[in-house]
Amino acid sequence: MSDSLEQLRQDLAQFAADRDWGQFHSPKNLASALIVEAGELLEHFQWMNEHASRQLSAEKRNAVGEEMADVLLYLVQLSASLDIDLVSAARAKLAANALKYPVERSRGHSRKYNEP
Amino acid sequence: MSDSLEQLRQDLAQFAADRDWGQFHSPKNLASALIVEAGELLEHFQWMNEHASRQLSAEKRNAVGEEMADVLLYLVQLSASLDIDLVSAARAKLAANALKYPVERSRGHSRKYNEP
Amino acid sequence: MSDSLEQLRQDLAQFAADRDWGQFHSPKNLASALIVEAGELLEHFQWMNEHASRQLSAEKRNAVGEEMADVLLYLVQLSASLDIDLVSAARAKLAANALKYPVERSRGHSRKYNEP
Amino acid sequence: MSDSLEQLRQDLAQFAADRDWGQFHSPKNLASALIVEAGELLEHFQWMNEHASRQLSAEKRNAVGEEMADVLLYLVQLSASLDIDLVSAARAKLAANALKYPVERSRGHSRKYNEP
Repeated sequence: MSDSLEQLRQDLAQFAADRDWGQFHSPKNLASALIVEAGELLEHFQWMNEHASRQLSAEKRNAVGEEMADVLLYLVQLSASLDIDLVSAARAKLAANALKYPVERSRGHSRKYNEP
Repeated sequence: MSDSLEQLRQDLAQFAADRDWGQFHSPKNLASALIVEAGELLEHFQWMNEHASRQLSAEKRNAVGEEMADVLLYLVQLSASLDIDLVSAARAKLAANALKYPVERSRGHSRKYNEP
Repeated sequence: MSDSLEQLRQDLAQFAADRDWGQFHSPKNLASALIVEAGELLEHFQWMNEHASRQLSAEKRNAVGEEMADVLLYLVQLSASLDIDLVSAARAKLAANALKYPVERSRGHSRKYNEP
Repeated sequence: MSDSLEQLRQDLAQFAADRDWGQFHSPKNLASALIVEAGELLEHFQWMNEHASRQLSAEKRNAVGEEMADVLLYLVQLSASLDIDLVSAARAKLAANALKYPVERSRGHSRKYNEP
């Protein structure tokens, strides 16, 4: 894990320990909390068209950033709970995607990830 | 953003540019893709009880790690698209949570985040 | 609940009883399964623009319909588990929304549900 | 569609038409709104253990019912938009599940839907 994420992991562990919240932080519950935050993130965009989503006001951008922070906080806590190195896992996935979506056959297709 | 996340951001930008995928990567779409991956993450835990979720097999743990990687990859791309520093946003949120949930009043309560 | 939904509720109860699945069907788990299916539903649209989402092929439309069916099946099972009348709850919500979004102040605003 | 759902569909169509909201109600957006509500539903259960989720207070049960209503309202609107008969789709899925999960091989397994 990166140094900044590692520091975040340690601070979150202390935060939860101070409040005796480890009992609630099962991986099952953390994965639930993560998707709840992902929903709050998406809520900002649900009625917005794609073009508008590329041109957020400063206020909206801040609000979106807070929801993204919540997603990251649960993701880091989940990775700590399961002893998973997030950045290594992400790099491995990126390498796998490079094989799965060769440049020449993937260029400009929107039906990329989930359709033949 | 941390150095490792920054490297990830750069590699993801190159990956998308090589495939001309920027046209699909509006913040609205990235936020959708993120929650779709969060659903695939939660799917591993949906019928599992909390205790079992703390004792994953190595195989299951790897599968869960891959979904977490997908969440991070979209989170990093969304942060790049909106020019948001993920780690700074997370640290700010953690500081705000420390004020919102004082140790002495939050200890051991499961009804922490969303209920009075 | 409507007659068709009531019949569905009964058949789902029998389906679960035949397989001794009641033990897994806590409201917590059913709500998790529901959002997982909602993610599979959204996956069909994640890279599609809004215009294209209004013009699905027959094949895609069928696939989308299957995910919508899954969402309904879990929604009906959750309502049975909590003894909630889905249609009555929906009618009450619609009536509340009529007060919350008066026609003259809501016309044509995309920032309707979640913003002042 | 059942008679009650059909009535709901008609009332929702009128509600949206009165406010000129059809322009925002693309299937893509409705599927986003649906999962956002599914997240608000799950939020009630995220820190609760399964046992507690089977014993909700009357107040909590009402709050959960409101989120379920929101999910149904978007599901009905999406089905109207795509001209999909929800109840027929659900019955077809239930019939398919009966073949996929034979009673004798599925009894009492929690790893039912997503694992071999």
